[in-house]
Order: sequence, then C-alpha cells, then structure tokens
Amino acid sequence: MAKPRLRDLGIHMGVIPTGKYNAITDVPGVRVGHSTIIADEPRVARTGVTVIFPREEPIWDHHCFAGFHVLNGNGDFTGTHWIDESGLLTTPIAITNTHQVGIVRDTLVRYSTEQFGAHEWVMPMVAETYDGWLNDINAFHVQPEHVIEAIQNAHGGVVEEGCVGGGTGMICYDFKGGIGTASRLVDTPSGRYTVGALVQANHGDRTLFRVDGVPVGREIPTSLIPSAWDEPEQPGSIIVILATDAPLLPGQCRRLAQRVTIGLARTGCVGHNGSGDLFLAFSTGNNIPSEPTAPFSVNMMPYPHMNWLFDGVAEAVEEAVINSLVAATTTVGFKGRMAYALPHDLLQAAMRRYSPR
Amino acid sequence: MAKPRLRDLGIHMGVIPTGKYNAITDVPGVRVGHSTIIADEPRVARTGVTVIFPREEPIWDHHCFAGFHVLNGNGDFTGTHWIDESGLLTTPIAITNTHQVGIVRDTLVRYSTEQFGAHEWVMPMVAETYDGWLNDINAFHVQPEHVIEAIQNAHGGVVEEGCVGGGTGMICYDFKGGIGTASRLVDTPSGRYTVGALVQANHGDRTLFRVDGVPVGREIPTSLIPSAWDEPEQPGSIIVILATDAPLLPGQCRRLAQRVTIGLARTGCVGHNGSGDLFLAFSTGNNIPSEPTAPFSVNMMPYPHMNWLFDGVAEAVEEAVINSLVAATTTVGFKGRMAYALPHDLLQAAMRRYSPR
Amino acid sequence: MAKPRLRDLGIHMGVIPTGKYNAITDVPGVRVGHSTIIADEPRVARTGVTVIFPREEPIWDHHCFAGFHVLNGNGDFTGTHWIDESGLLTTPIAITNTHQVGIVRDTLVRYSTEQFGAHEWVMPMVAETYDGWLNDINAFHVQPEHVIEAIQNAHGGVVEEGCVGGGTGMICYDFKGGIGTASRLVDTPSGRYTVGALVQANHGDRTLFRVDGVPVGREIPTSLIPSAWDEPEQPGSIIVILATDAPLLPGQCRRLAQRVTIGLARTGCVGHNGSGDLFLAFSTGNNIPSEPTAPFSVNMMPYPHMNWLFDGVAEAVEEAVINSLVAATTTVGFKGRMAYALPHDLLQAAMRRYSPR
Amino acid sequence: MAKPRLRDLGIHMGVIPTGKYNAITDVPGVRVGHSTIIADEPRVARTGVTVIFPREEPIWDHHCFAGFHVLNGNGDFTGTHWIDESGLLTTPIAITNTHQVGIVRDTLVRYSTEQFGAHEWVMPMVAETYDGWLNDINAFHVQPEHVIEAIQNAHGGVVEEGCVGGGTGMICYDFKGGIGTASRLVDTPSGRYTVGALVQANHGDRTLFRVDGVPVGREIPTSLIPSAWDEPEQPGSIIVILATDAPLLPGQCRRLAQRVTIGLARTGCVGHNGSGDLFLAFSTGNNIPSEPTAPFSVNMMPYPHMNWLFDGVAEAVEEAVINSLVAATTTVGFKGRMAYALPHDLLQAAMRRYSPR
Repeated sequence: MAKPRLRDLGIHMGVIPTGKYNAITDVPGVRVGHSTIIADEPRVARTGVTVIFPREEPIWDHHCFAGFHVLNGNGDFTGTHWIDESGLLTTPIAITNTHQVGIVRDTLVRYSTEQFGAHEWVMPMVAETYDGWLNDINAFHVQPEHVIEAIQNAHGGVVEEGCVGGGTGMICYDFKGGIGTASRLVDTPSGRYTVGALVQANHGDRTLFRVDGVPVGREIPTSLIPSAWDEPEQPGSIIVILATDAPLLPGQCRRLAQRVTIGLARTGCVGHNGSGDLFLAFSTGNNIPSEPTAPFSVNMMPYPHMNWLFDGVAEAVEEAVINSLVAATTTVGFKGRMAYALPHDLLQAAMRRYSPR
Repeated sequence: MAKPRLRDLGIHMGVIPTGKYNAITDVPGVRVGHSTIIADEPRVARTGVTVIFPREEPIWDHHCFAGFHVLNGNGDFTGTHWIDESGLLTTPIAITNTHQVGIVRDTLVRYSTEQFGAHEWVMPMVAETYDGWLNDINAFHVQPEHVIEAIQNAHGGVVEEGCVGGGTGMICYDFKGGIGTASRLVDTPSGRYTVGALVQANHGDRTLFRVDGVPVGREIPTSLIPSAWDEPEQPGSIIVILATDAPLLPGQCRRLAQRVTIGLARTGCVGHNGSGDLFLAFSTGNNIPSEPTAPFSVNMMPYPHMNWLFDGVAEAVEEAVINSLVAATTTVGFKGRMAYALPHDLLQAAMRRYSPR
Repeated sequence: MAKPRLRDLGIHMGVIPTGKYNAITDVPGVRVGHSTIIADEPRVARTGVTVIFPREEPIWDHHCFAGFHVLNGNGDFTGTHWIDESGLLTTPIAITNTHQVGIVRDTLVRYSTEQFGAHEWVMPMVAETYDGWLNDINAFHVQPEHVIEAIQNAHGGVVEEGCVGGGTGMICYDFKGGIGTASRLVDTPSGRYTVGALVQANHGDRTLFRVDGVPVGREIPTSLIPSAWDEPEQPGSIIVILATDAPLLPGQCRRLAQRVTIGLARTGCVGHNGSGDLFLAFSTGNNIPSEPTAPFSVNMMPYPHMNWLFDGVAEAVEEAVINSLVAATTTVGFKGRMAYALPHDLLQAAMRRYSPR
Repeated sequence: MAKPRLRDLGIHMGVIPTGKYNAITDVPGVRVGHSTIIADEPRVARTGVTVIFPREEPIWDHHCFAGFHVLNGNGDFTGTHWIDESGLLTTPIAITNTHQVGIVRDTLVRYSTEQFGAHEWVMPMVAETYDGWLNDINAFHVQPEHVIEAIQNAHGGVVEEGCVGGGTGMICYDFKGGIGTASRLVDTPSGRYTVGALVQANHGDRTLFRVDGVPVGREIPTSLIPSAWDEPEQPGSIIVILATDAPLLPGQCRRLAQRVTIGLARTGCVGHNGSGDLFLAFSTGNNIPSEPTAPFSVNMMPYPHMNWLFDGVAEAVEEAVINSLVAATTTVGFKGRMAYALPHDLLQAAMRRYSPR
C-alpha cells in the first residue's frame, strides 16, 4: 500500500496546480531510482543511494543546462565546478551518505565509461547528507552494486518517498526525514511548464518547523513526541534537485536554484552552520549536443516570465520537504536510537488549530 | 506623536527578545539619518536619502568587517567590489532612489574628503530602490544638501520608519512601504550580542504577503484596499542593512547577509526578476585600523555559535519589513497615483482569524 | 599627426592577426568617445570621461549578453549586479575618475531617459580609476556636459589612445598611462570572429613590466627615467572592456572576462591590493530584445571553440596595455608632479637587447 | 641521484629568494607524500596519489584558514564548498587521476575516522587531473593501500618531483609533466614569511610555453621533439596548492589563490576550456581549534602587505610549473604512447638565445 502524502492528509499548500504525480518525474524524461540498505547485522545499516537521470536521452550525449546554488556550504557535491563554469550537466546525479560519496562517484564513472565508452572522462555529480546518527556510517555499507541497483531502479512516474535510497537514515526538523518530491504546473506568459523538486531532507530545528505558515513544530513538543537526539542536535543538511522543462540558460537555472532557499525558509529552514544546503537546478528545455561543431541555437525564456517559475519552485520545494516527513516512518537505528515519524494526526490537528475562523 | 509599530498593534513575532529600540541602532554606535523630500510643485517629489553610520568612531579610520549577498541582482549598490574583496566597510552607507545613486555617492565623497582630508580616495556605498511610481523620478529631486541633511540628522535611538528618507516613495506587497527596522538580543554560547536590520522595502506581491505565517495579503484583497498599481505591477526591490556587535570576520558577515533571504521569505518575498535584493551586513565587533603597520589580531565568533545570530537575523528582517508597512501612511504621488497604507485594523483582524483555537 | 602605436615602433606581439584598426571598434558597431579635461587654472585638471557604445543599435532596446570578472576589487563599477544576475548589458559603459563615478552615472541616466523615454529605469555602468596624483581630483572637474561630449564624440574606426578621456591622468607601470586598445581576428572552428579590448591603465610596478616577455621595466630604471612617484607608490587600477561579435551566452562572456587576467599578467600585472581590476566582456553576437514576449532563440559558440577566443583576448589585452603606454605623453600635473612617458627609443632598445640571437 | 631542478640547469627566475628546499615544505609543518603506480601488466598503469598534510599538528583538530579559486572549472576538487563557506581546511589534501577521486576520498574518510575517532564526519579534499592518455585510466589502478602509502610517505624537506604520485601520468605544454614545487621567502613590512606552491601540471599548449618570458615552446618545435599527442590535443588541467605561514584570514587566502593565475599566465597558461584549473591556498599562521567554545582571536596581515605575498606566489607558481617539467622523464604509456621530457639542453639553449646582449 502506498505511503500517504501531504495531500492525502487533506492538507494543501500553495496556489499553483501540481503535475500528475506531484513529483520531479512530472518533468518529462526525469527518472529516479533508489537503493535502500537496511540491516541490523553485522553492523547497523540505515543508508542508501538515490539516482536521478535528468532526461530521457542519454545525458552523456544530450546535456542539460544547469545551475548551482549554496545556502550553506557544510556539505559536499562533486562535479559542481563544471556546472559553475559551463552550466552543462553531463552525468546522472546521485545522493548518498557523507562518508561514501567516493564509491558512488567512482561507480558512476565506471558505469558511464562502460555504457558510453566513447566518452573518455566523466565527472559525476554526487551529493550527500549525514546519516551517522541512525546508520553505522563508518561501516561503509554502500557498495558498487547498490549504485547499479539504484540506476536500474530508475523510472518515471511515482517516486517512492521517505526512508528510501539516500534518504533512509535522515532526520528532518527532529522527525524522521528522507526523500520527498513535489511539482508544479506553471502557467507563464511563455506557456505552461513543469517544475519539480526532489529533496533529501536531513535538516532543521523542530521549534522552527512550519507547514503552510502554521508553527507545527511548536505544536508537537518533545513531551508529546520525543526528540530524535539524546545529545545536542547534530548538524543536518538538505540536498535539493530541481528539474524543469522550461527553456533556460545556465544562469537562469542558477537563479532557479537560488529560489530553493525561499521554499525551505517557508518550512523553517535557516541554513545553520553545520548544514550542507546545496541545490542543483537543471532544464530539459534545451538538448545540448556533447560535441557541437558550429554555433548552435538554444532557447531561453524571457527573464520576467521566470517569476512564475520562481513561485512554482518555492511551492514545490516547500511541499517536497513536507512530503519527505509525511512519508517517513519511525526508525530505530544505530545504537538503538529512535527517530519518530511526524505523526499525521498531530500534524492534522495543528493545521486545524490554526485554520482561519 | 510617534507612529505605531507592529508590536504596538499587539502583534508579536519570533521568540528572541528585541533590543531597547527594536532598531538597528540597538547595536551600539550605529546611527541613522533621513532626508525626506516631499513636494507637489513644480514637479512631484516623493523621495529622499537615508544614511547609516556603522559605528561611533569615524568609519574612515575605524573600519568594520562586512559582507554582501545578493538574492536578486536587479539593482545597484556601489562600493560592493571592495566588500567582496576585503570585507572592509570604510564609508557610511546611503540608500536613495534608482536614478540618483550618483549624486549621493559623489556628495559622500566630497563630504568624506572634506571631513577627513588625509584620505585620498573614497568609494562610498550607495544603494537604491525605484520610486518612479509615486515620485517624478526624472525630476532628479535629490541634491547634495539632502545628503548632508541626512548625515546631520543621523542619530542613535529611535529610528523613524515608513515614508521617510530613501523610503519615502516605496511600495511593498502592494501597500505603501518604506523604511523599517528591528533588532534582536541574541544569547549565544559566546555571550549576548545584538543584531539589527534596517530595510528600504519596495518589493513583493500582495497575494504572497504573510505576517508570522498568516496569509495577510490574501486576507486583504484589492476589493477591500485598492492596488497601488493601475497597470502591470512594476518591479520592486529591497535593500537590507544588517548590523551586529558580535565579533565576525568578513566571511561570517557575508553568511549573516545571506540569511536576510530567510527573513524576507517568511514575509512572502520570492526575489522576483525585476527586484534588486541586495544585502549588506557589518560587524562592529572588531575595529580595524585604516593603516595597520603590522599583523594584528581580530576576534571571531566560533562558527557553530553563529546559528543563534542566524535565527536573530531572520526574525529581525521579518519584523523590519512589517514595521516598514505598519509605519507607512497612504500616499498620493506622481500622476495622482495612490498607494494605500496597510490598514492596521485589517492586519489585526487577519492575525486574529488565524490565531490558534 | 596621429600618435604612434606599438606596431609603429616595429614591435609585434602575439601570433593572431589584428583587426583593421587594431581596436575595440573592429567589433562592428562598437563606438568610443572621449571627453578630455585639461586645465591648470583655477585648479589643475587632468581627467575626463570615456564612453563606449556596445552596438550599433540603441543598447537600451537591443541588449548584449555580457559577463563580469574581478581580479582585485579595490575599485568601483556600477551596474554589475545586474550583469552577474542576468548577463544583460542594457546601457552604454563609461569610465572616469574615482571620485566622479556618480555624476557620470546620473548623467547617463538623464541622457538615457531623455533619449529613450519609454524606459522607466536605467542603471548605467560606470567604472573608475584613480587620477588624484596628477589631477586635483577633489576639484570635481567632470560635469554633465563632459559626459554628453564623450557621448557625442563616440565613433567607430580609430580610437584615440593615451592621455585622453578617462585615461587623461593615469599612471601605468610608473610611466604615463591612459587609454589603450587592440583587437584580434580569431579563426575558430566556428568561423572568424573579432575580439577587441579597451583599457584604462593605471596599474603596475615598473620592475615587473614586460613587453612580449622582455623585462622592459627593469631595463629602464628610475636612474634613466625618474619615477612618477616621489612618495610610496599609490594604488593603481585597470579597467578593461572586452567586445566580441562571437555569439556567446552570458556565462561565456564571463569566461572571456576572466581571461583578461592572462593578458595583464603577461605585461607584469599581479593585481595588487590597492588596485581595482574590473573587467567587463560583452558580445554583439546576439541581439536581445528588451521586452521579449515569448521564449526566443539565441546562439552560442561551442565551448571548446572558445579556446581560440581566449587566446585572442590574452593577446589583445596585452597589446592594449602597451598601446596605452606608447600613446601616452609626459604629463605635468597637480602640484607639479610629472609622469614620464615610456620612452620609445628605450623600449625599442630593450626589445632589441632581448631579441633572439 | 636526485633529479635536477630548474636552478640546477643554471636558470633562475624571479627576484625573491627561495626557501631552503625551494618547496612547499619550506612552510614549517607542511608534508608531502606520494604513491606512484607504474605497471605494464595486466593493464598499463601510469598514475598515483599525492597527499599534502597542511601543518605539523593533526589537521582534524588544528584547522587552517584556506581559500579557493577557479581559473577554469573543468575539473573536480571535493570539499571546496566548506572552504568557500567557512574558510576552514579540516582534512589533508590529495591529488589523483580524474576517475578515482572517489576511492581516494573515501579512503581518507576511513583513515581520518580510524585515526581520530572522535570526529564523526569528514569531508576530505581531493583534486584530480586526467592521465588517460598515458594511463589505462579505466583500469582503476588506485586502491586504498596506495592512499595509505602516500600518507605514510609524507614528510617535510625535499619533495620528489616529476613523474611521481598523482603526477605520474601528466602531460604539460606537450612535454612530460607531473608534480613540481617551489617556494619564496618574502620580506614584507609585516616580517618575513614563506609561500610555497605545489602543482600537478597537466595543462598547456607547447607554442605558448614560456620560461621567464622566453618563448621556449616555440624554440622546441615538434620537428625536434615529437608531440605527446597523435590526435587533437586532449584537455589538460592544473591543480595548485599554496601554503604560507603568513597570518591570513580566509578571504586573504582566497586572494592568494587567485594570484596563482598570474604565475601560470607567465608560463603560457590561458585556462582553456577543457582544463580544470583549481587552486587552494592555506595559511598555517593561525591555528584554529576544531571546537572553540568562545570568541577567540586570530591574526591577520594588513591588506597592503599582501602585495609582497602576491609577488611571491606568482614567482613560486611559475617556477613550480617549470620544475615539474624539468624533473619529469620521457614516459611510454598506454597504447605505446610516448610523452617526451622537456630536453634540458634545448631549454638551456633557448634561454641563452634570448638572454640579453
């Protein structure tokens, strides 16, 4: 049975309609795959890998324009220097735990060169958040086969959320976090486009947590639902991937990525010091050949029309974070630590308490 | 009689205590002065200049560390290249209208060299937002004497808000905007520090406007209070100046400036394409000599302790924007255009309607 | 009689052919105008304004893509925040002295709105270098009529170099500096394009000065030609404007601008602390409408083909700096200070001394 | 017998004295270790790993301030987001080949957590350049034991140069490249400090190659020494690590890193499109505790005094590149390809031919 999502709880946020799946996969061609690693023996595993293919065509030969933004840089995301320089996304994107970015990266190199031998070098994009509270991170559970599994699992349509893939061991706003996604169908003067967000959410203070403006975190104190932490809260992070089919230049993608902060701020994110808040936005609206031989044309949306996309990004990111919390389930992990799911009934009660009279 | 402020309306936001004046001037040494230019003849003037002195000592000889951040770059702010390079704030800061940045800048040069002749060159920091809807901007009303007046008016303590100084002709969330300020006394593991924000608020869509999470903008439709615009909304902007007495390095100031976005997002700001959303943060916690002759020591706050400052910045910025709206008064300007003040009673009613049961 | 240029002295550098005028104006449509202000009474003036029109069509309605790079940020250049955000160049560019950026900026606002009234706001791009050693800078000599004069003087073809316009009071590598220009016709796999550079050169240590690798500065010690300084050298700066007709996106323009450093380094520039080394590159290869109503196509050069442009930029910048020195003439200025021209015969002798056997 | 270095050939460049070893290790505490992987069976290996320890004390507990700069971003360097955010260098630095950044990173994670268990997360800094022309890169030769070997080999004093460690398979200016190093003892008004550079040099066009201004590359055409390439030249890259004991803040380190471009430009580098030109500068002049509990003081050099450091960086980087070429030896690699060493006699002859009369 499918996990519920925010809207299944009767809670709606924003004014822009969602795509069919309310997921990053509403952008045609985008595919997401997870490999979830859960084990109690010999060492506790609550981790995994999530892979995103940005377009239907092989990304190695059909590049996307992309842009990158950092809210707070206490995190890693390989491959971003070439995004900053050229705005070319040339590989799949993966998200995993902090200590195993390397094996995921090198496995993507190997996979890419084996699949597409003509390409002599590859610099994959791999991001991370830290799951060492629930996962015995220094057991280094992620192996090459997990990366391949995530690749093979990649598909369009419904995206599994919560404690899956790279999101398996996440904690967000002091509740169990993980993978979340959402999308918006944006009617702009340039036509209708889709923007989709996927988050690996591992950040935030409970007392700041809000849903559509309602201070839900304050409404669910630790006296009701215990904290995930039994010592000073550890730094968290959030990785956000944005996709759109709007025709954008690299700089326009970067501007989209910067608006992730707006959506996160609505949920209570401040971008704390220990957080790696790293955002990548890509557009499938242009299909950039890997080896062009002459000047070629690309399409761009008029700058003023981007306002509608900006609004859509803010809404999609806000809802994706909440979706990650709604889908996640209470998890016992490393050293018996327990991270409680955001209780759906208390969420609904809080929303009702603050609903307009 | 003093204008009311948000808290005078019984509306409180945030959990961190304010400074004595709930103003940027709560940071010891910071002074603010306005020159307000209002005239109907021969051409309509609704404009002005606001000047901020960053510390008690002459800033030309006692530099502050500072950092700069851009949410959306459709605006101008002179002198930022040296901030980005060195993190040294070496001049007062001024804010005015878009078309007269130059005269304010050059007047500050003249003033600086006359007052402090030993300094052979000066690169003042002057920011702007556009007031051409209410102000006949191409009449170029601002003259050197206005800049001098703002300088001479500068004082600590209470800061006049609303339709004053550079904020005279502003429109914010489709209501009359202007200058606003707020502060927070932040208890960190490193001790208690003050953060203060001053905004010249000229941005935003009414439908997105929120106060402490409540969708106030949607609660006050244009059927109740007419729009300030009788044609497609013009781009706005917001300039934010942050001050703190916490001992910060330049990079730490930059991080503070980036958190302005968090506070703005809480009020409904998305950073639209036509907006110049430019933020400067400075620290008085170090007093940098203008001509050091040997290595010297400066103090820095531990990075993790900045989280408390970040939270304080978000709150202060959020409240400063609302304060600008609460203080502003309905204004008729250029071509008879009218920008209505945010009605206090409707604001209060909206807050009540969404208060918890 | 025209001033000689480097090549007139029999000195050639680089391997790429020049354009017809070996000037930024070799990029079709680019026009340059100077207003030179020289007076001894009542106060010494050695200053001026240089204006560059980026394309034949009115720039206000036919934007160029552009990019900005800073080697060292001790200088000012208004209007760059919008370049960084959007890559749109929407106004003429002006260069003047440090203390009068403002009057030049506001005059360009006035001129723009008067000429093109439909445009309601303008944020002109004005850069500066410091001429206070030879010019009584606090006499504020530049007046609006000088800006208008520079505008009206703007033309294609030969660009006057040396002690003209904004370059009137410059000192470069301890010799008399000023305005210089050069260009390259670059044969790339994408076709032939022109890159042109214009510099206002006011930077550098004589001992580091090189011409085509030859340490000319060391060959012309102050025992032969006295220093321009009778006290510790003051900070200098260099502003560089690059133009090309190659079809480039904003990010590609930024990359071009970054290569200015390469050309400068060849002449001995290190980017010292007191220097404002600010570079703007624009492309006329796309004509961006000011008010597009739907997505539109723009052309871009394949990234690998940019290598040829990069090489051309390095050569053009290198030669433009030397041209500024060759054209400048010995100048007596403020307080009787004297900056000697780079002596052509000693330059030639140095080049001969280091020529291959 | 030690390999010769540039100065052993009687060629001296620059005017600033070198440190004792003319190496990055002249900065007290800096240690460098290599693991060189050379094999012909079963698959051709010409690769390796180089590790740099930034200070004597464990870097995990005694952080350095650091700064990062990109000339051209077609390369990868993990861990830089935290440098950009905080300026804190918290791990050793490693350099390897493009396709194995991951295994080196994860091995450093494992080593760090095993050695320093109290640290719960680690984000190592690993850079790369591409050696797939001489090395069968998709054989993935680098294994964890190589990383450990490089760590264990790390020492102060003489640094082995040329075809060692990460530099084993490099090609630079179309000659055999590799690891190079150099240093300068800089007398500043703030006192004497050391700056040291280490490069993994894999970049550049032969025709642009210069030594102390002399066009050595043009003097050694492919008719004399065949090209390393039998097809269109592949993109190269250069990684540069700068160390200094001058007391610098993070932003000052970033400025130092930016001056790497100056030194590279002197050797003929333009920063071509396919190049990953990534530079990290760190200072041992402050010892930043990993867990400070209160504000603390750090030392900074006056900004104007950095000019001397800038000059030293330019010289050290220039000489380090040439040292990498002088030490490298002719190498036959993957598919029988051959990269010739820069012939010492032809280098000397070129220098003589251009020496002053």
